[in-house]
Amino acid sequence: MDIATLVGVISALGLVVTAILLGGGSFNAFVDIPSFLVVIGGAIAAVMVAFPLKNFLSVFGVSKKVFLNKVENIPALIETIVSLAETARRDGLLALESKIEDVENSFIVLGIQMAVDGTRPEVIEDVMRTELDAVATRHRDGKSIFDQLGRFAPAFGMIGTLMGLIIMLGDMDPETIGKGMAVALITTLYGAIVSNVIFLPFAEKLGFLNKQELLAMEIIVRGIMGIQSGDNPRVIEQKLNTFIPPKMRASEQEAA
Amino acid sequence: MDIATLVGVISALGLVVTAILLGGGSFNAFVDIPSFLVVIGGAIAAVMVAFPLKNFLSVFGVSKKVFLNKVENIPALIETIVSLAETARRDGLLALESKIEDVENSFIVLGIQMAVDGTRPEVIEDVMRTELDAVATRHRDGKSIFDQLGRFAPAFGMIGTLMGLIIMLGDMDPETIGKGMAVALITTLYGAIVSNVIFLPFAEKLGFLNKQELLAMEIIVRGIMGIQSGDNPRVIEQKLNTFIPPKMRASEQEAA
Amino acid sequence: MDIATLVGVISALGLVVTAILLGGGSFNAFVDIPSFLVVIGGAIAAVMVAFPLKNFLSVFGVSKKVFLNKVENIPALIETIVSLAETARRDGLLALESKIEDVENSFIVLGIQMAVDGTRPEVIEDVMRTELDAVATRHRDGKSIFDQLGRFAPAFGMIGTLMGLIIMLGDMDPETIGKGMAVALITTLYGAIVSNVIFLPFAEKLGFLNKQELLAMEIIVRGIMGIQSGDNPRVIEQKLNTFIPPKMRASEQEAA
Amino acid sequence: MDIATLVGVISALGLVVTAILLGGGSFNAFVDIPSFLVVIGGAIAAVMVAFPLKNFLSVFGVSKKVFLNKVENIPALIETIVSLAETARRDGLLALESKIEDVENSFIVLGIQMAVDGTRPEVIEDVMRTELDAVATRHRDGKSIFDQLGRFAPAFGMIGTLMGLIIMLGDMDPETIGKGMAVALITTLYGAIVSNVIFLPFAEKLGFLNKQELLAMEIIVRGIMGIQSGDNPRVIEQKLNTFIPPKMRASEQEAA
Amino acid sequence: MDIATLVGVISALGLVVTAILLGGGSFNAFVDIPSFLVVIGGAIAAVMVAFPLKNFLSVFGVSKKVFLNKVENIPALIETIVSLAETARRDGLLALESKIEDVENSFIVLGIQMAVDGTRPEVIEDVMRTELDAVATRHRDGKSIFDQLGRFAPAFGMIGTLMGLIIMLGDMDPETIGKGMAVALITTLYGAIVSNVIFLPFAEKLGFLNKQELLAMEIIVRGIMGIQSGDNPRVIEQKLNTFIPPKMRASEQEAA
Repeated sequence: MDIATLVGVISALGLVVTAILLGGGSFNAFVDIPSFLVVIGGAIAAVMVAFPLKNFLSVFGVSKKVFLNKVENIPALIETIVSLAETARRDGLLALESKIEDVENSFIVLGIQMAVDGTRPEVIEDVMRTELDAVATRHRDGKSIFDQLGRFAPAFGMIGTLMGLIIMLGDMDPETIGKGMAVALITTLYGAIVSNVIFLPFAEKLGFLNKQELLAMEIIVRGIMGIQSGDNPRVIEQKLNTFIPPKMRASEQEAA
Repeated sequence: MDIATLVGVISALGLVVTAILLGGGSFNAFVDIPSFLVVIGGAIAAVMVAFPLKNFLSVFGVSKKVFLNKVENIPALIETIVSLAETARRDGLLALESKIEDVENSFIVLGIQMAVDGTRPEVIEDVMRTELDAVATRHRDGKSIFDQLGRFAPAFGMIGTLMGLIIMLGDMDPETIGKGMAVALITTLYGAIVSNVIFLPFAEKLGFLNKQELLAMEIIVRGIMGIQSGDNPRVIEQKLNTFIPPKMRASEQEAA
Repeated sequence: MDIATLVGVISALGLVVTAILLGGGSFNAFVDIPSFLVVIGGAIAAVMVAFPLKNFLSVFGVSKKVFLNKVENIPALIETIVSLAETARRDGLLALESKIEDVENSFIVLGIQMAVDGTRPEVIEDVMRTELDAVATRHRDGKSIFDQLGRFAPAFGMIGTLMGLIIMLGDMDPETIGKGMAVALITTLYGAIVSNVIFLPFAEKLGFLNKQELLAMEIIVRGIMGIQSGDNPRVIEQKLNTFIPPKMRASEQEAA
Repeated sequence: MDIATLVGVISALGLVVTAILLGGGSFNAFVDIPSFLVVIGGAIAAVMVAFPLKNFLSVFGVSKKVFLNKVENIPALIETIVSLAETARRDGLLALESKIEDVENSFIVLGIQMAVDGTRPEVIEDVMRTELDAVATRHRDGKSIFDQLGRFAPAFGMIGTLMGLIIMLGDMDPETIGKGMAVALITTLYGAIVSNVIFLPFAEKLGFLNKQELLAMEIIVRGIMGIQSGDNPRVIEQKLNTFIPPKMRASEQEAA
Repeated sequence: MDIATLVGVISALGLVVTAILLGGGSFNAFVDIPSFLVVIGGAIAAVMVAFPLKNFLSVFGVSKKVFLNKVENIPALIETIVSLAETARRDGLLALESKIEDVENSFIVLGIQMAVDGTRPEVIEDVMRTELDAVATRHRDGKSIFDQLGRFAPAFGMIGTLMGLIIMLGDMDPETIGKGMAVALITTLYGAIVSNVIFLPFAEKLGFLNKQELLAMEIIVRGIMGIQSGDNPRVIEQKLNTFIPPKMRASEQEAA
């Protein structure tokens, strides 16, 4: 659970509400359902046109990821790979079959399964790299949806404000002109808030999570290839450790 | 048929109309033919200057593509190639001649025809890659037209609004100033709507479709080269399968 | 003659004028010489600072190119090269000397002349590629001037409008304030029009023309190198044809 | 201590205050706590969503760095490495153990320690490059936080102004409308000031400091590898000197 | 002396002044010292924060360069190198010592001095390329300061205008409101003018000058390496000539 995401979203919205109340505004003056429809509905509609349906529907899963933020523990991952390498070295590749039941990471399982089945090394690497590339593409597309939502929401905010101004100006009644303009500006406000509190920061965070996840997958591919070719577990550990800074290494002494 | 594109465009426009009606505006106040001419006509004229005539005329075909969105079924494509490889392996390259009548994909037909004709492999690959590059360029240009329309439409929207303001200000009549300004703002509104509902999302979607189509062509080139050099159909299948994620593969067991 | 460029510029300007007349404005209200001086003069002055004098002066030649748009006919070009190759093969390199008088393209003439003079192949290729790079740089700089004009014109439009507003506000006379503001906005309008009707679309089109011209030069370099080394004319044709899509090839059957 | 950073920040803020006083404004009119909360709090909250908590917390350490600006003295660094190389050459690698106590730079110590321990050269280089890459990533992320603060602060400034305008317009009292609008604009002013005086210039300076620090680390890696393989100290000096311009070299005569 | 830079800056400023006078404004209304302080002082302060002090101070030298614009005469440069090569070929490398006194270009002198001193070729090339890289970095940083000034000046222009509006609105006196607003807009005008007349065009021109200077240095490096290895002067000339278009070559006939 990434507490920072939740704290950030809630405190940004809290600040906005506090500022309204401190500024002497009534909260009701800031609630306008049609404005909300234009901004959120418009941004979603534009993204529906811009992305294939499958990608568009993935947005909910991706949002959950931003909140859960379950980052792979890379030192633990290396430890797992090294322990599998030790088993393979001691008891042969086939002995891994019984051990993979305890491994949670499905990408390790995929690789070990192929190694146990005697798949040729080039094919193992090809299959794993294709999966890695597919994940990278899925990530990029997921981030891209939030980037586009963050771009279309203010655009529809402006569209809404223009519509409000045109309605107001077409019927200039000195008594209501202020209120009309206030309502017109609400869509621009909504667009700016959802874009800057939610869509754009989410896109940034996804970029970070994706880099972390791809690093873990890269380490797994290298580890599986080492296990498959029967490398010494110590050598595998040394090689994988170079992916992480010295402080985070499980067994720096042996590596050095 | 890509239902999402249609649903997206219609719901975005529907939201705009609904918001006008909910906001108490009359729909007529939002219809202004000269404004429409300036925005759409201006954007089209600018794009006519910016692109060679041939590219400009391709915009209609490209638009249709966004709606039809006929994405290549890649697993089926691989199956077709593997079946051709089996025929070639069993009965010789010449036996493919009778089979290609059943193949829909014209790029496969082009490649097989050359292989049957005994064209040298380098030439086959050169010809197919040139075709692939030509398609990639055509795609990039097609996307680029929508990018430019999406950039020029708001610019002409602003030009129209400036013209409206200048007319209105030159003849400041307190009774009509509101209406004059309302009309002036309509072009900016039109520019923002066509850009954010149609042009920019279309450009994004074309980017996606293009990546998919080029992947299919890349797979075909590799497949044809494998068939031409008499590779084992199983090996061809394994190699082509690495282009798609494991879940989508037709015969994962054999590949592993 | 690129009719699209002319039609585009004229119809964009026509639309603007039509919209003014339909909008009930008088055309005179949109003519203001000082505004024109600030926008066009300012953009030109900024570009004079930004570019070496020689590049700046090339802008007129480059503009002409956008209108004439004399794109190299690539299939005809390949035919010419192949015919030269046939002569060289049949009668020797020296026989080309009499034939190059009929060749219009000065880049082919340069290459053939060097081949006839017995220049070493590496030197021929170096000289031709340097020429190609020089043309590419000249093109990039030419496009870049229009990009910068398209960026500075609206900036000086805004500068003019700010000056107009400051003059108007310093002397607020309710009777003339509208007219003063109208005049102030004219510079922004001028900046937007010249940028979006002329400078930016011209820059885009130059990008296209340049890509086409460099492709032709690349084909010529390859062709001359083939002729110089005495390649079979059919082989040269095959190789050069891979630069263009199958449909456009003069003699596809032979190539296959 | 980088006096320029401090002088720059103080004089920018001083100029703003001076301009307010010269402009006849009261300083109090520019202080508004809720506005400050919306801009700074909003930007911080957005960045909390956008970055993992750990990166976000690093912002204070990174800010200190901009002020302290302790740039590595590269000629002195090369001198240190050359002196270590001389010891290693004269008395053997093990003799370095006693000398590294005097070395301040922890990255040199890390490398020498590994060399003394007899770690294999590939592993030394891998470990040092991983550390270098980790520092580069940490730097990029540090710079990126300031870039994002510089992007979100004006956005929340605009959000605050929109809220102020909506409150003001909802309750149009001719007497207070001026004051209301003044308060509304304060958030945009705050956003522009913190972004342009602090966040964006800090991000730029971090980019510079980072390049300098990575250059020093690159020189250390090369130097340690030379020492480990027993290169002549003069040769090491020559090679490392090529990283800095001639004027800055400690012993140009010997190098030439 | 680059007359275009001076003419450009003077005519841009002249146009602005002319437009003010033609527009019926008094020149005095456009002079406001505090506004000038905020825009120029603010941009300079921000750049002082953003760049190390040393780079910041280089801005004056770099400005001079934009006006002087002393571009290396590349054909003359090649001639010098070829003449040195002839001497070296005829009388030996040591004979160059007496000739370099006549050579103005200090980069050629550096290279020849090293060759005469018998420095190993790899070291000569390393030293010269490091110098070239150092110059490239210095150029990039010099251009970058103007880019940043061109970005911060309009930002501080907007900051000044916001401050002016807040002062004016806090004390709405119908008689002075126009003048107050006029003064407020002056900072935005100043920011736009210095950015678009000076900072941004200077940055562009520096980009051009830098490319030219680096090309000259590249040619010198190649020439010195050729001289050092005793290449035939004609061969050196041919190779260096490929860096410039045929028309500019001193002795095209011999090269061909």
